[in-house]
Amino acid sequence: MTRLSRRRLFGLAGAGAALAGVGAAAGCTAAAEPVPGPAEAVVPFRGARQAGIVTPAQDRLHFVALDLTTDDRDRVIALLKKWTAAAERMVAGAETTPGGAVNRNPDAPPDDTGEALGLPASSLTLTFGIGAGLLDKLGLADRMPAGLAPLPGFTGDQLDPATSGGDLCIQACAQDPQVAVHAVRNLVRMGFGTTTVRWSQLGFGRTSSTSTAQATARNLFGFKDGTHNLKAEDGAELDRHVWVQPGDGPAWLDGGTYLVARRIRMHIEIWDRTSLSEQERIIGRDKGEGAPLGKQAEFDLADYAALDATGSPVIPTIAHIRLASAENLGGTRILRRGYNFVDGSDGQGHLDAGLFFIAFLRDPHGQFVPMQSALANSDDLMEYIEHTGSAVFACPAGLAEGAYWGQSLLEP
Amino acid sequence: MTRLSRRRLFGLAGAGAALAGVGAAAGCTAAAEPVPGPAEAVVPFRGARQAGIVTPAQDRLHFVALDLTTDDRDRVIALLKKWTAAAERMVAGAETTPGGAVNRNPDAPPDDTGEALGLPASSLTLTFGIGAGLLDKLGLADRMPAGLAPLPGFTGDQLDPATSGGDLCIQACAQDPQVAVHAVRNLVRMGFGTTTVRWSQLGFGRTSSTSTAQATARNLFGFKDGTHNLKAEDGAELDRHVWVQPGDGPAWLDGGTYLVARRIRMHIEIWDRTSLSEQERIIGRDKGEGAPLGKQAEFDLADYAALDATGSPVIPTIAHIRLASAENLGGTRILRRGYNFVDGSDGQGHLDAGLFFIAFLRDPHGQFVPMQSALANSDDLMEYIEHTGSAVFACPAGLAEGAYWGQSLLEP
Repeated sequence: MTRLSRRRLFGLAGAGAALAGVGAAAGCTAAAEPVPGPAEAVVPFRGARQAGIVTPAQDRLHFVALDLTTDDRDRVIALLKKWTAAAERMVAGAETTPGGAVNRNPDAPPDDTGEALGLPASSLTLTFGIGAGLLDKLGLADRMPAGLAPLPGFTGDQLDPATSGGDLCIQACAQDPQVAVHAVRNLVRMGFGTTTVRWSQLGFGRTSSTSTAQATARNLFGFKDGTHNLKAEDGAELDRHVWVQPGDGPAWLDGGTYLVARRIRMHIEIWDRTSLSEQERIIGRDKGEGAPLGKQAEFDLADYAALDATGSPVIPTIAHIRLASAENLGGTRILRRGYNFVDGSDGQGHLDAGLFFIAFLRDPHGQFVPMQSALANSDDLMEYIEHTGSAVFACPAGLAEGAYWGQSLLEP
Repeated sequence: MTRLSRRRLFGLAGAGAALAGVGAAAGCTAAAEPVPGPAEAVVPFRGARQAGIVTPAQDRLHFVALDLTTDDRDRVIALLKKWTAAAERMVAGAETTPGGAVNRNPDAPPDDTGEALGLPASSLTLTFGIGAGLLDKLGLADRMPAGLAPLPGFTGDQLDPATSGGDLCIQACAQDPQVAVHAVRNLVRMGFGTTTVRWSQLGFGRTSSTSTAQATARNLFGFKDGTHNLKAEDGAELDRHVWVQPGDGPAWLDGGTYLVARRIRMHIEIWDRTSLSEQERIIGRDKGEGAPLGKQAEFDLADYAALDATGSPVIPTIAHIRLASAENLGGTRILRRGYNFVDGSDGQGHLDAGLFFIAFLRDPHGQFVPMQSALANSDDLMEYIEHTGSAVFACPAGLAEGAYWGQSLLEP
């Protein structure tokens, strides 16, 4: 783990040495995933995988989906190269260009918007994804991976087109939301004339652990979420469930993954009027410890066969953890990396709150669709939630030195 | 400063000792304002002033404005008492009631929604304000302070009634947004049947320092904001500009203050196309250091009389810092405590970003109105911003032991 503050880099930039310094700093730590406790931590930008997937989930999120406003492939490539260079600098705690916020021609607009000046890197990761629309618009439909086929409708979906889809996405995660917002805002800005914002979502608190070093966080139902999530340490399980393998589809996505995003509005007012025991039956865990019903500790394994004195299952047949379990889904697992949100109020006297679900997985139609179908059709939790946004993106493998976002697709 | 985690209190609650513990912990530190660096810090709830005003500005905000759905004074008093008890517990890092999240009748809904279980107090402050509508609805118009008279319209206002006004407000500030959201959500929940949410605003990053111990933060124009803000250490200046003095108006507000909230949408895309030198002329400071134009360091005093070689003012006549300066406003100062926000996208291809302006002051019509008039009529910055929400609340003085929010008004 390296520690570099934007302020120090800013000083370096004044001496004309910033970019080399950043590259060296990022490169020298490429082997290990840092634990993002310290605000100063820098997560390596390049490597076999994109950062922001098995990177220990940072506390804050700014996610943006963009649409292309051009079908000019060269123009898109030029933007992706510019984005990549800026992203690499920003995750290292620097401005988008050396001295870009203030140290250039004063008669031109600054290259960097400046609100992150003086803030450390804050474990920022920027994860890039490609939607079906990008391939369509750029005449690349022959390279369309099967995973980008539209998801089916699920029971109870109330999807708003304005918060669904997108030709590409950028997921910014950081310990400091100002750093995540700064990154998205500057990338959006660079896209003027080539991309427009389709939708954007802030998440104030992580709900998933993606490393065994992290404590399980709670969602807005008040329950620990993602106890048995796939984690960075799971090695072969990640190859099986998360990383696209050679032969799965077009080669440009080999070593990558899919990102499924679902904006899930929670009807917290109704949930809050439900009894504790009912809440625990719906989830299948106790609320305090997060232990599976009938067990004592959070990480105790659920016993789905156990019966109570009356002969009923200790963990109800429609409990969320049972329906979503690998046991119930033929061994299917996913890596979740979602965030709690509150988007103001709903105009009806309530907070507009929920979970912005993000999952990384190898096969949306083989993993997410059966899981969500099982939940949508049987899960009592569905009475308390509503899916209001949906999108799927293909996230290519990580970048080698000199490569840019999307290169494996656009210039294979 | 005391350190108490929700987890430890939760343990105490199991032993039936929580509330006494909390009260003692909060009470024993009532003399000093803690610096909210550590996540564990507890800000005293009771004292001569409400917390969350001169308390060093925490990093995150959840602000909610509520409307009364009743004109029954007793019902409102009952809610305010319940709120006060829960607020005092939550700022100490506890649930709304002892063991309220899980440790009670399992056949009843939990008293506490649970998503902050295990999180430390995080310097949470809950600040209570009263709008004109509350006095009207409860038949207390004879106690209406002059400061709650409607603000005039200002040039360029684009106020949305859905994000303006409110019969009362609660400002939750904390180092952890999940703690602030949990507090607002639980207070909103307790209000069912008596209050509904009118609007709610999250702020992800503070833009103002309210203590000399804090570094100045940056707004989304990329500039340091609030360098010469009133601060906790300003003693007599606070009495002059922030705290309502005996004789100012009805006695129930003596020792209190007014809160003026303005949701300011920033047209960041237009700003970002403006040259650095133009940005600096509009603000009146350099972007890197934040020094007044013509000076070197952030806290150097601006020289509004200085002329450049051509005889023009070094700090332009329409520069923001000149127009908003005490010199330009006959000595008027305010205490700002605003937050950056991004509320998703605007449906037009842009981020919906800006500044949620919060100011505390002794006299909205004598301080905010002339300041905002001067800015709205002359400030070049107005080309880049739009006020989309507005509200004024009266925040009574702090609570003595046993007192509840609003008691000085409702049971004087």
